[in-house]
Amino acid sequence: MTAARSTTTDWLVDGIPGRVDPRDRGLAYGDGLFETMAADRGRIRWLDHHLERLADGCRRLGIPLPDVSTLRREIGAVCPATARAVVKLIVTRGVSARGYEPPDAPRATRMVGTARWPSHPPSYYTHGIELRTLKLRLGENPALAGIKHLNRLEQVLARIELNDRSAQEGLLLDTSGFVVGGTASNVFAVSGGRLLTPAIRRCGVSGVMRRVVLESCGQLGLDAEQTDLAPEALGAADEIFVTNSLFGIWPVRELDGQSRGAGEVAYRLQQLLGYERHG
Amino acid sequence: MTAARSTTTDWLVDGIPGRVDPRDRGLAYGDGLFETMAADRGRIRWLDHHLERLADGCRRLGIPLPDVSTLRREIGAVCPATARAVVKLIVTRGVSARGYEPPDAPRATRMVGTARWPSHPPSYYTHGIELRTLKLRLGENPALAGIKHLNRLEQVLARIELNDRSAQEGLLLDTSGFVVGGTASNVFAVSGGRLLTPAIRRCGVSGVMRRVVLESCGQLGLDAEQTDLAPEALGAADEIFVTNSLFGIWPVRELDGQSRGAGEVAYRLQQLLGYERHG
Repeated sequence: MTAARSTTTDWLVDGIPGRVDPRDRGLAYGDGLFETMAADRGRIRWLDHHLERLADGCRRLGIPLPDVSTLRREIGAVCPATARAVVKLIVTRGVSARGYEPPDAPRATRMVGTARWPSHPPSYYTHGIELRTLKLRLGENPALAGIKHLNRLEQVLARIELNDRSAQEGLLLDTSGFVVGGTASNVFAVSGGRLLTPAIRRCGVSGVMRRVVLESCGQLGLDAEQTDLAPEALGAADEIFVTNSLFGIWPVRELDGQSRGAGEVAYRLQQLLGYERHG
Repeated sequence: MTAARSTTTDWLVDGIPGRVDPRDRGLAYGDGLFETMAADRGRIRWLDHHLERLADGCRRLGIPLPDVSTLRREIGAVCPATARAVVKLIVTRGVSARGYEPPDAPRATRMVGTARWPSHPPSYYTHGIELRTLKLRLGENPALAGIKHLNRLEQVLARIELNDRSAQEGLLLDTSGFVVGGTASNVFAVSGGRLLTPAIRRCGVSGVMRRVVLESCGQLGLDAEQTDLAPEALGAADEIFVTNSLFGIWPVRELDGQSRGAGEVAYRLQQLLGYERHG
């Protein structure tokens, strides 16, 4: 255990293989952002979308955005040339004196590394997954909604709760009682020929694959609406699917133990976006 | 800048001077806890209280509590023998594979280091401070309320909001509209001879100095009540003060621009607990 623990990683910290200052505000307060990206033979899918979300998060938190060409170069440096992998990017407000107050001129820390590609059963793509509503409710803070910041303890607790059950993904509501999404995914409903997804105004992450689906659904002749989605409305939908930028699109074949047909829209989006053979 | 950035720190990571693995869940998700402690000539004030809160946080998050004698030894190793300092302890769920799901057998990471002692104007103790109600509302999650976890972006945003104003501390309400406390302090009201403080059920941190005050107020002949405290009730109180384990107790002499007398209870608690000359 100790030997495995102390091996060096292949992470770049500010461009150099290494570790992180314990005073970094990303560790101290979760004062930073991250992106989790799908890499396939040297190419990052939706890289521009990920970098745009990062830039939006930096702007909203007041963290100086690192030079984007440097980020692209460092992502390229860790991205395996021949295999599939997850590439993770973290940008924090950097090292500061102790205390919540940010420094006047913060200098962001960049960290880039890889993780093993998660392989999922092909049936998740073809037959769909089970989704279970969790008891944990997400706290609401519009100032943090949408961005992929480093404060993710609620998602960790949600995963712990999900582990007591048999579903593949947990569904989270906010304290107002509306649907937010999965523990690590966004959720969509198809209802009366319209595509509905939670508006991500009070909490939750605006996923890159969510954006791709919203930008693509017109090609399937579907209008999309970002709205307050009640759990009852989700349950009554013709079709449900979940999205994230690693797995793409999974139909939901069971919600809280109730079987339902995995729908056509999820399959058509998989095909349109090239996820149908990614299981 | 670069030279200053790359100097080594005096932090111990798992007992060894060093840095942190970028894959540590404390950085990735804020999946951990911290304690910020007042050290004076080799002694940590309220060390047992800090370690008890840490143990409570570990239990609630399912993080294995590191051996407490090891923690005490490492705290002692970094604690300056002759000066005042802040000693900070961080305990995380350790390194894991990527993803919110915790490992089956997590191995906590311990980090201990020091920071400069913050010196405050003596007038904060004698005349009191100004408190301003902030616009930011704290999201509510009972699963995280009370413990001092690493998800502190709301406090960072609160400090940023406070910086546009002139007060020394910002007052935060939760999304239900009740008082939670300061950005880095707990708040107390004296009203009709009773001591009132927010119950910390939905959000906020149960501060060590808050606990000390609740345990000590009987010596001043005061009953204490932990309750839902409306901002109007706070404004109507005979006396307001704020507490934290670094500065101790500060009277509030102005709330949202309205002057008020700094009250007797704060002074008597300062005297009882030895904070009246700590300015």
